[in-house]
Amino acid sequence: MEISKIGEFGLISRIDDGCVNDPSSVVQGIGDDAAVVRVSPGCMLLICTDMLVEDVHFIRCAAPWTHIGYKAVAVNLSDIAAMGGEPKHCVVSIALPPSERVENVDRLYEGMKCLLAKDRVNLVGGDMVESSILAISVTMVGQADEKKIKYRYGARPGDVVMVTGDLGASAAGLHLLEAELKSGTWTINSAPDMEEQPHQEDPRSTALRAHFLPVPRLEESRTLVGLGPGCVTAMIDVSDGLASEVGHICDRSGTGALIYSDLVPVSESARMIADEAGIDPLEWALFGGEDFELLFTVSKGYVRDVEDAFEAAGLCRVTAIGEITEPSLRRSIVIAGGERVDLARDGYVHFRQAFR
Amino acid sequence: MEISKIGEFGLISRIDDGCVNDPSSVVQGIGDDAAVVRVSPGCMLLICTDMLVEDVHFIRCAAPWTHIGYKAVAVNLSDIAAMGGEPKHCVVSIALPPSERVENVDRLYEGMKCLLAKDRVNLVGGDMVESSILAISVTMVGQADEKKIKYRYGARPGDVVMVTGDLGASAAGLHLLEAELKSGTWTINSAPDMEEQPHQEDPRSTALRAHFLPVPRLEESRTLVGLGPGCVTAMIDVSDGLASEVGHICDRSGTGALIYSDLVPVSESARMIADEAGIDPLEWALFGGEDFELLFTVSKGYVRDVEDAFEAAGLCRVTAIGEITEPSLRRSIVIAGGERVDLARDGYVHFRQAFR
Repeated sequence: MEISKIGEFGLISRIDDGCVNDPSSVVQGIGDDAAVVRVSPGCMLLICTDMLVEDVHFIRCAAPWTHIGYKAVAVNLSDIAAMGGEPKHCVVSIALPPSERVENVDRLYEGMKCLLAKDRVNLVGGDMVESSILAISVTMVGQADEKKIKYRYGARPGDVVMVTGDLGASAAGLHLLEAELKSGTWTINSAPDMEEQPHQEDPRSTALRAHFLPVPRLEESRTLVGLGPGCVTAMIDVSDGLASEVGHICDRSGTGALIYSDLVPVSESARMIADEAGIDPLEWALFGGEDFELLFTVSKGYVRDVEDAFEAAGLCRVTAIGEITEPSLRRSIVIAGGERVDLARDGYVHFRQAFR
Repeated sequence: MEISKIGEFGLISRIDDGCVNDPSSVVQGIGDDAAVVRVSPGCMLLICTDMLVEDVHFIRCAAPWTHIGYKAVAVNLSDIAAMGGEPKHCVVSIALPPSERVENVDRLYEGMKCLLAKDRVNLVGGDMVESSILAISVTMVGQADEKKIKYRYGARPGDVVMVTGDLGASAAGLHLLEAELKSGTWTINSAPDMEEQPHQEDPRSTALRAHFLPVPRLEESRTLVGLGPGCVTAMIDVSDGLASEVGHICDRSGTGALIYSDLVPVSESARMIADEAGIDPLEWALFGGEDFELLFTVSKGYVRDVEDAFEAAGLCRVTAIGEITEPSLRRSIVIAGGERVDLARDGYVHFRQAFR
């Protein structure tokens, strides 16, 4: 059987068995944004890893090397944020062709270091190997107070589903990149400048920044953790798309969920770019992925506390987009007219096509 | 400038700067077998990572998938052993073509789990991504008593250089593999059986096992650590070759070294295979690499203690092969006749060729 038939999640479920040889120290193994292990009494570590591969996660001639390095670190910081932890140390392995320019490798690490410095994370080691293609593997080690760690499980019927920031801009940025690569108008200088401040008014710049230079929501995670153990009941970061992440929380929590399409904070830049391209921006917001926002559930009485805390700390917007339901109810999205459709790509796309 | 001009060590020295953003927690960053970080008072972590890439570190059709997985874990366990630590948890990222068979991925993880189970190490997470070639990145997290950690630095003039096991068999195994691939006689069944006990008498089997299924010297490391802080002054594992590793210890310790070629424990299997191929087996032992033996220096009075402890614990052989010298003396090897030559590949090869 080919891997493509069962996909990443199918593969993971096959190898899950027999991974834990010392159960006493593993609080969370495979199956969340990061592993949680106890290394000494009271000392809890978070460990996560992500690999980026050329032509799958980035195109070498289309993305500045700084940006490739930045993103390899950002996706891992986002995983630690999704657990409610503090990133501390990382190791980086890179595979690359021996004919590659040393100056490009310098820039790759420059991009990583720029982001690592912001959160005082150390790059403490790694490996450099020869390869025909470029691949980067980052492993991040973080720490968290045992009682404050947020898992994908823990959501209960009645909890409110919330999300930080807005969604769809990363997919809009990828759309622009792909269109401009196709038309031959993309150059390496089309990528956003890492040094510059983001221009919120310019949809193109906003979308490309969201795709190339996503901001891990560490400060937002700290604020959520600070609201106490009764507030956030489950958390995940939006890497594969909102719909997929809601599904993970439901799977792990044994619940259903209802998301209201009207409430989903679709990025204004995504909306404008989608309009121009004749695309439904909600599709980017639900299935686009790589937004690296935090998706979390809170006990019903805490929504206002979250909103107030975000405002007081000057953080990004935060939006209640739905609720957790009994497991007997399917995870669904309520579309504008009140119609419920399955919160899976097939369900949603099928619904929209039927009404076009 | 192309990477090939400066190599891995040249690249590492370029990126070393600006990696540590929180110096208070980093005891050892880039530059040893593993990083050493403090995560809470008394809680010291070791972190190391190694990446194996298809057609560089292994050939997909020549090595059983179990063996590829085994080796990806073994090289990391060896790094933790070289620090005098205990491996605890690992994360594994793999990049592979979507057309690859699921059953092969199962076997890859089987090979890893087989070795992880022996030392009760947990596989707690990872990543699986699409790629045109197969690549495996393993990050190992271990623990060690702060006072017992062994670094590459610490060797002092007068210390004795010792090595576990014997050397050159892995290079001999690689030689056989390459010769049989070239002649078309190698099949996947030519690789050693993971379940079987090694046949010490058969040089071919011994050499192929050394290449495909190296045994990380964790037990030997524990015994060395157990001899107290005054015994082992510096330690490293032999991954790039004895000569290179002696060089690392000298570089980091600020010393010279003298290795006696007569004392280097050349593997009997390497000797027999080299004889047949008309190759100098000492070249494999010095420069072959991937033996994953421990190379270490001990205070002069401790050689006998090391030998006795190894014998008492029923461990592998352990051999004194030279001594650490003042930095003013170059690192050299004393060849049979008493002639000193530079312990660099060029120095040694040049010397041998001049006398052929």
